[in-house]
Amino acid sequence: MTSLSVEQEDAVMQKAASKQAKRERFEAVWPLIRNELDEYMASETMPSEARAWLKRNLDYNTPGGKLNRGMSVVDTVEILAAHPLSETEYIQAAILGWCIELLQAYFLVADDMMDQSITRRGQPCWYKVEGVGNIAINDAFMLEAAIYYLLKKHFRSQPYYVDLLELFHDVTLQTELGQLIDLITAPEDSVDLSKFSLEKHHLIVVYKTAYYSFYLPVALAFHFAGITEPQAFDKAKAILIPMGEYFQVQDDYLDCYGTPEQIGKIGTDILDNKCSWLINTALAIASPEQRAVLDANYGRKDADAEQQVKQIYVQLDLATRFESYEAQSYKQINAAIDAVDESSGVKRDVFRAFLAKVYKRTK
Amino acid sequence: MTSLSVEQEDAVMQKAASKQAKRERFEAVWPLIRNELDEYMASETMPSEARAWLKRNLDYNTPGGKLNRGMSVVDTVEILAAHPLSETEYIQAAILGWCIELLQAYFLVADDMMDQSITRRGQPCWYKVEGVGNIAINDAFMLEAAIYYLLKKHFRSQPYYVDLLELFHDVTLQTELGQLIDLITAPEDSVDLSKFSLEKHHLIVVYKTAYYSFYLPVALAFHFAGITEPQAFDKAKAILIPMGEYFQVQDDYLDCYGTPEQIGKIGTDILDNKCSWLINTALAIASPEQRAVLDANYGRKDADAEQQVKQIYVQLDLATRFESYEAQSYKQINAAIDAVDESSGVKRDVFRAFLAKVYKRTK
Repeated sequence: MTSLSVEQEDAVMQKAASKQAKRERFEAVWPLIRNELDEYMASETMPSEARAWLKRNLDYNTPGGKLNRGMSVVDTVEILAAHPLSETEYIQAAILGWCIELLQAYFLVADDMMDQSITRRGQPCWYKVEGVGNIAINDAFMLEAAIYYLLKKHFRSQPYYVDLLELFHDVTLQTELGQLIDLITAPEDSVDLSKFSLEKHHLIVVYKTAYYSFYLPVALAFHFAGITEPQAFDKAKAILIPMGEYFQVQDDYLDCYGTPEQIGKIGTDILDNKCSWLINTALAIASPEQRAVLDANYGRKDADAEQQVKQIYVQLDLATRFESYEAQSYKQINAAIDAVDESSGVKRDVFRAFLAKVYKRTK
Repeated sequence: MTSLSVEQEDAVMQKAASKQAKRERFEAVWPLIRNELDEYMASETMPSEARAWLKRNLDYNTPGGKLNRGMSVVDTVEILAAHPLSETEYIQAAILGWCIELLQAYFLVADDMMDQSITRRGQPCWYKVEGVGNIAINDAFMLEAAIYYLLKKHFRSQPYYVDLLELFHDVTLQTELGQLIDLITAPEDSVDLSKFSLEKHHLIVVYKTAYYSFYLPVALAFHFAGITEPQAFDKAKAILIPMGEYFQVQDDYLDCYGTPEQIGKIGTDILDNKCSWLINTALAIASPEQRAVLDANYGRKDADAEQQVKQIYVQLDLATRFESYEAQSYKQINAAIDAVDESSGVKRDVFRAFLAKVYKRTK
């Protein structure tokens, strides 16, 4: 690490402190939301055990992640607003953000069951918690239902209320489609690389990740900020979906080439038969001999087989291919951002802020 | 069976034929719906395997039940309409009906996983089908998402569109609450009768069954028929929720006292630790000695233990208690129907038709 000047060090620390303060402000809204849902339970005369169960489900599964998606709503609203947000506006925007976090919690509780995962965010997966088990399926449903309860409570009188509902419906279905393609293309227990392709990879990452992680926060913020022109939403989608795809390709790359310190875990995509950008790129250019090695070794729970696959990746120089993909993708996304027409109230900085968060991240 | 006159036999056969024709007309709408969802998949460039998977999920899980809930929407719309429905109106009403059937499919696919059931409607539960397994969780999600796709496609321009969305959201959450109380009160593998009570039973049946099976079809039909006064919906709820509760109490009664020919299955509520009306009524009036027998024998997977519980039911004369509950409930519901004000467009016959379907059914 190169040493920093005192001024540089100060700037870095200020940035970290402001990031932390932002996170804390966003997190402070969560108890309000959880209490509102608990008050609803009380109003419906639910027994105390059911109230305690839902509270625990909400608290265990919703906060605790990186909160990037939820905080992006607030960040975007702040960029779009012509004035500093009032406390009420901040809370409203944060509620929309927490609705994405609830959507994510809904998906993750279920994904962990489908993948038979053991831990998530450093704690046992919800379905693995003593006494929960398959009740986690109904708990996932309730995390989703909480979204619509909150939207009704806080946004019912807004002219864009129905747009919020449709946005969540549409993106939920798209994410489930992505999950479906992923599940039937890359089941962990049955390896068949002939099902893989870069086209499938594209569909999986766009549907399973990009819509809800990249387009949804910005589209929610657009509605909140009073943007109504359909073209503004189309344009945002045309920038954010490729950005989400780039993000996921980078994630796939780091799973194999990032150090454990960088990515906070040991990558297991090769062992787990994941339909990753690396394997799909390899399949597209491998010789018949290399292909045979991939077929024989991909998705086996075996460190030696994993090494064989990694050697093919090196032979095919996938690291260089990733760098060139990354440079090209960055250029295209930037060009699309530069071409944004700001007359409908959209600001290029919304997309620049997003890109700055994801481009060349090392974790 | 007493013998019927030729005229009576004709009337019975005509009624059966008309019931069958009604069912067939309703079923004929299903392929249109399934094809619309498949066309959506095609428009999103989904791979053929994913399209085939969703089609199979839809067809396996949505039709094939009694379709009472879905057909009730059409029946209610027909009673409310001042004119015979056009073909277009019929299809629109049937789509709303199929949306309830999709909601039910969503719940049942998940319930079967949570209950570890083996068969449903005479075929293996979806998650038990070769190659499906835990993918059924995402499939359940997609059955729910299909509802909002259909509502958007067919009802977006209607003034009551947002009411339809909120109705489905509200009822979905209520049903999940009922399922939650049921799951934590009466887990199959851990018997604790101190958790049971008639109050819990009331909450479970109202939330888990009555809202989506009784209130939802009528409320959807009200919106479709242009009824807008909130009091009309409140009144309908005040009649239909008790009717749904009566229906479920009767279901609990038949599980124990109906013959297999009547109910099409062998009742297993006692073996399965179900929070049934019978056990809760028994607990409320049992002597300490009888209570000890119930504690020792309820929810055990053992035919002898089941018999011990049944003997207590006989000692407590639960059959007579059910009959008196039934008579009282019938009287109260009829009185509430008689008191309906028809000036807002509501018709008493809507509720009478419903009651006729559920009262003193033997299956």
